[in-house]
Amino acid sequence: MRLLITGGNGFIGSNFDVGVKISRKDCDLMNLDEVIKVFSDIKPDAIIHTAGKIGGVYGNIKEKGRYCYENVVINANVLEAARIVGVKRVLSLSSSCAYPVDAPIPYKEIDFHNGMPHEAHYGYAYAKRVLDIMSRTYCEQYGVIYNCLVLCNVYGPNDHFGKESGHLVPSLIHKAYVSWKNKTDAFCVWGDGTPMRQFIYVKDVVDICKKALLKFTTPGILNVGDEKEYTVKQLAKIISSNFDNIPFYFDVNMPNGQFRKPMSIELFKQLFSNYKFTSLQEGIKQTIEIYKKEMEK
Amino acid sequence: MRLLITGGNGFIGSNFDVGVKISRKDCDLMNLDEVIKVFSDIKPDAIIHTAGKIGGVYGNIKEKGRYCYENVVINANVLEAARIVGVKRVLSLSSSCAYPVDAPIPYKEIDFHNGMPHEAHYGYAYAKRVLDIMSRTYCEQYGVIYNCLVLCNVYGPNDHFGKESGHLVPSLIHKAYVSWKNKTDAFCVWGDGTPMRQFIYVKDVVDICKKALLKFTTPGILNVGDEKEYTVKQLAKIISSNFDNIPFYFDVNMPNGQFRKPMSIELFKQLFSNYKFTSLQEGIKQTIEIYKKEMEK
Repeated sequence: MRLLITGGNGFIGSNFDVGVKISRKDCDLMNLDEVIKVFSDIKPDAIIHTAGKIGGVYGNIKEKGRYCYENVVINANVLEAARIVGVKRVLSLSSSCAYPVDAPIPYKEIDFHNGMPHEAHYGYAYAKRVLDIMSRTYCEQYGVIYNCLVLCNVYGPNDHFGKESGHLVPSLIHKAYVSWKNKTDAFCVWGDGTPMRQFIYVKDVVDICKKALLKFTTPGILNVGDEKEYTVKQLAKIISSNFDNIPFYFDVNMPNGQFRKPMSIELFKQLFSNYKFTSLQEGIKQTIEIYKKEMEK
Repeated sequence: MRLLITGGNGFIGSNFDVGVKISRKDCDLMNLDEVIKVFSDIKPDAIIHTAGKIGGVYGNIKEKGRYCYENVVINANVLEAARIVGVKRVLSLSSSCAYPVDAPIPYKEIDFHNGMPHEAHYGYAYAKRVLDIMSRTYCEQYGVIYNCLVLCNVYGPNDHFGKESGHLVPSLIHKAYVSWKNKTDAFCVWGDGTPMRQFIYVKDVVDICKKALLKFTTPGILNVGDEKEYTVKQLAKIISSNFDNIPFYFDVNMPNGQFRKPMSIELFKQLFSNYKFTSLQEGIKQTIEIYKKEMEK
């Protein structure tokens, strides 16, 4: 099967070990004609659509309009170009942050559209919702198989580590690394450490995407993630243990975010029975090993 | 105030008596560069965005993917081009069909995003929802005033009368006219005549749009329509009375559609106290007079 990965230079796309990867230098996904041209040249049997404009908490709040607009257009172009070129299979990546802020816990697929997403990122989140809706309408009208995986917190190599205000795992790893390297203070963890999160190692995402191309072929979305939840404090401890147990402290003046937002993975378990997720301990260990090497190059 | 109307040749746009109207021959709204060019040339202070790909029940069901894609792109292009060109005010038209199919009755603005729209038109409906979301994110990020009016069943001159399976009012008027003209049978009304609907005369829509440019300046949506509901049977009677009381019959094998889907207009009444809507009797009378003249040209 000839596979094309959008967002090939991005965090998730760059971790793929198969497929033709396209990134910004190959194709401007905001330009439909370019997307059609590139898809026509590559002639993929299937597309895994990982591309998107992402920006963590800060970007999503400050540039809500831009994130909404660009992601809506990118997603529309990818699906429309795929259809025009005759690609029968598109698997797109969505995010648990698109769930309604007040959906019943754990988040079930059926509730994905039942309410507004969190105020902080509703522009970005709505682009992810339309990706689901447009995929479904294309299935109905054109007889293709376009659908989406909804991911919890993905972490791993090639994440956006630089930003203090970025995603939880890379920003904590980065802060811990800086403290450890400089042998200075303890590193700072935002909030009081009690919020709980589900995590998934990016290499599991890659593995599941490849399998889902053939196994998850119904219209709609599928939640993907390890069922186990960790507190932010537990996460910080695991990270610390990879830096000679460097201490950390909580800045309770910074926001905790939602207390819990676990996704139900009942449907996932029906399709992928007994899937063995990489443990958070092992995934974080591998991530930090690679990150340290990168930083010390 | 220099006003630009998108969809100037469409049903609602063509009823405007002010503003520079643009239509397909002036600008392909699917092409961002063209939209920017035209908006730059006209330099509007405000835009009333009425354009969209619409198709009644049949089109929405059969071409869900196309309706979703084209409307999403048109709406994204209009807002983005307006922003780029520096237009501070965009008032867009949305539709009550974008409400969740199971929202509490009467539909309140706060429930607009709380659930899936009706299965028959969710592709179209989602494009209308993103129009609201994108408008709001643009208000937040760029400090503009972009928002949407949500309309119930609009009827009046220049509607799409030709299609048997089009919208309720024009299809009934067309069928009644054909029966009356040919002095043949009674005309057929789909369903059993019991479903209830709210209607608004297109000339009231034009009037309210012009006023809303200055009066409705908060981010979000505003329901617009006459509070009074009519049964389909009452509507058929009013239409019949304008064609020498030609008889009609119900085809109960055809779908009734939703039984009721009234919108709450509490917020509208706060902004437009004591607004006098054109009565359904008067609006239908005027519509049929103009339609007869058109047909007998």
